[in-house]
Amino acid sequence: MTKTLNKQWQLASRPSGEPTADNFRLVEAPVPELKDGEVLVRHHFMSLDPYMRGRMNDGKSYAQPQALDAVMGGGTAGEVVASKSAAFAVGDKVVGMGGWQEYSVVDAAQPGMLRKVDTKHIPLSAYLGTVGMPGVTAWYGLNKIIAPKAGETVVVSAASGAVGTVVGQLAKAKGCRAVGLAGGPEKCRVVVEEFGFDECIDYKQHPDLKSLSAALKAACPKGIDGYFENVGGMTLDAVLQRMNAFGRIAMCGMISGYNGEPIPMTQPQLILVSRLLLQGFIVSEHMEVWPQALKEIGGLVATGKLKYRESIAEGIESAPQAFLGLLKGKNFGKQLVKLV
Amino acid sequence: MTKTLNKQWQLASRPSGEPTADNFRLVEAPVPELKDGEVLVRHHFMSLDPYMRGRMNDGKSYAQPQALDAVMGGGTAGEVVASKSAAFAVGDKVVGMGGWQEYSVVDAAQPGMLRKVDTKHIPLSAYLGTVGMPGVTAWYGLNKIIAPKAGETVVVSAASGAVGTVVGQLAKAKGCRAVGLAGGPEKCRVVVEEFGFDECIDYKQHPDLKSLSAALKAACPKGIDGYFENVGGMTLDAVLQRMNAFGRIAMCGMISGYNGEPIPMTQPQLILVSRLLLQGFIVSEHMEVWPQALKEIGGLVATGKLKYRESIAEGIESAPQAFLGLLKGKNFGKQLVKLV
Repeated sequence: MTKTLNKQWQLASRPSGEPTADNFRLVEAPVPELKDGEVLVRHHFMSLDPYMRGRMNDGKSYAQPQALDAVMGGGTAGEVVASKSAAFAVGDKVVGMGGWQEYSVVDAAQPGMLRKVDTKHIPLSAYLGTVGMPGVTAWYGLNKIIAPKAGETVVVSAASGAVGTVVGQLAKAKGCRAVGLAGGPEKCRVVVEEFGFDECIDYKQHPDLKSLSAALKAACPKGIDGYFENVGGMTLDAVLQRMNAFGRIAMCGMISGYNGEPIPMTQPQLILVSRLLLQGFIVSEHMEVWPQALKEIGGLVATGKLKYRESIAEGIESAPQAFLGLLKGKNFGKQLVKLV
Repeated sequence: MTKTLNKQWQLASRPSGEPTADNFRLVEAPVPELKDGEVLVRHHFMSLDPYMRGRMNDGKSYAQPQALDAVMGGGTAGEVVASKSAAFAVGDKVVGMGGWQEYSVVDAAQPGMLRKVDTKHIPLSAYLGTVGMPGVTAWYGLNKIIAPKAGETVVVSAASGAVGTVVGQLAKAKGCRAVGLAGGPEKCRVVVEEFGFDECIDYKQHPDLKSLSAALKAACPKGIDGYFENVGGMTLDAVLQRMNAFGRIAMCGMISGYNGEPIPMTQPQLILVSRLLLQGFIVSEHMEVWPQALKEIGGLVATGKLKYRESIAEGIESAPQAFLGLLKGKNFGKQLVKLV
C-alpha cells in the first residue's frame, strides 16, 4: 500500500516588517502510521487568523512564537479517516488545531485536542468562524468586558471580519446601537444591509484623526459606550475622543501594529478624563466560557438569526497568499482555505 | 458690631501652559449674615490637590471647570464658629468643601456638605489627607481596581505624595512587594525608611525610557502586577514594559500632562500582549465605599499603623505658591495651608 502524502506549510523565516510568501515553505511528507489512541484527520478547512501574524515574530507576545521549520499552527475542521481510538470513529466530523496541512495525527487521549461536531444544523466550516474561536472572541469581549445595556452604542473595528460581524449582531440583539468601521464602500454596505449594523464608517474615507473623529461623532450622536478593538492606531485615538464616561474597551487585536510600526495612543489621559476601562484578552485563556458561548452562538446560527460570511481560498497551495490578503483586509468575514 | 472679613483666592485667569501666581487674585469680603439652617465655619486647614490644576482649564474634563472670578474650590477642615442649624454646634470640628478662603457659610441641610469629625484620636488636618479624599483614593484604586494578592508586586508613582504613601502602606499590609517612584534621594529614602516601601526609584536619575525600565526591572524582579498611576507619560511607558500578564493599572492622575503637553502611550499593544486591565477613576463618584474606606484607614491612623506626612504652608496668602510647588513635586505627603 502506498503511503498517503501530506502537504504542509512550514514557517521558513521570520518577517522583518510586512510578511511575504517567501516566509513560508511548502513541503510534502508521508502520513505516519497511527499508534494506539491516535486518530488521523483529513482537513476539509483550514482557518487563517490575524493572531498568526503575531506568532511569526520572535518577540515577547502572549503566544509562544511559531517555531521555524515547523508546520504553521492553526485551527482545522475535517473528518476522521482512520482511528485507533475508541473515542472517534471513521467518518466523524471534528475540529482541532491541525495546522496548515492536509492531514494531522491527533492523540485523542489528550483532552481538548479534537472535538466532534454536529454538521446537520451547522456547516462544518462555521466551526472555524462564527461557531468557533472568532465567535467566542466576539462573545467574550462583548459580554464579559463591554457588557452593554440596551440603548448604549457599541463600535467595532474590522466590522466585516470574522469577529466584527458577530460583535455587531450580538450588540444589536441586546438592543444596542451598533456602528462598524470597515474598509471600502462595499464592505460597509454589506455590514449594514446584511449584518444589520446601524451604520458603518468607511475608514478609508477618513485618512486623518480629525476626519475619523468627526465621522464617529456623526455616527454615534449619543457618544460611544463600548468599543471592540481589532486594529489599534489612529482608529483607537479617534474612538477615545468619542467615548462616554464609564465606557468599556475590549482590546482584542491591534493589527495596525503587527508589522512593528509604532502605534502610539496619543491621548491616554482620556482614560482618566472619561473614567474608561480598557482590557486586553485572549479567548483561549477563558475556556470556562466556551460551552455557554458556543451554545448561544450555535443556536443563533442554526436558526438563521446570526449571519456570517466566509472568504474561501481553494487548495493548500493558496494558504500563504490568502493569509497575506487577510492581513491587508482583502477578506470578508471568516478567511478559510478549502482542502477537500 | 464690625463685620468679620474673609480673605479669598479667586481664579483670575486660565493658565496657558504652566500656571503662575498671576492666575490667582486675593480679595477680601465681609462674612455674610447667616440664614436659618446655615453654619459659619472658620477654616483651620485648606487642602491643595493636583486635581485643582485640571479644573483651572476650560477643556473637557471630568470635573466642571473652576469658574473665573469665583473662589477656588477645595476641601477644608475647621471649626463651627456660628450656627443657625440644629445639626451643628459652635465648637464642632468639621470637614467640607469650603474652598480657598478663611471662612465659609454652609447650608447644613444639604447632605454631604459638612461632616463632623472626631479629633480626639485623629488630628483635624488628617481628614484632608490620609483620612480624607487622598486616602480613600488610594484605598479605592488599590482595593477595587488593582486588588492585589499577597506576594504580588505593586508599583506607585508620586509615592511620596498624599495618595502614594497610602497606596504603598496598604499594599504592604496585604503582603505585597511595594515599589515607589519619587523625585530625589531624600524622598526615596523616607518612602522606604519611614513608609516601609521595599524600594523607591528616584525617577530623576532615569531621564530616558530605557534607564527607567531597567530600574523597574531591578526593583521588581518578579515583574509588576499592579500599578497605581499618578503621573503618566514616560513613567507609564516604562511600567507597561514590566507588567506581568493579567496586571491591573489604576489610572488616578496624569500630572505630567496637566499643562497640555502631549503624553502619548508609546506601546498600547502591551495592553493586549500582557492582557492588562486599565481603569480610570475619580473617587468622588464612588461615595458608596467611603464609609468602609474611612473606617479602615481611620483605624490604622488612630493606632499608628498608617503613617503620613504633611507639607504645611502658613497663612492664606501662601496658597498659590504652595499650590504651584505641589504641581512641581516640592511637597512631601499632603500639601495643606494652615490658616489658624
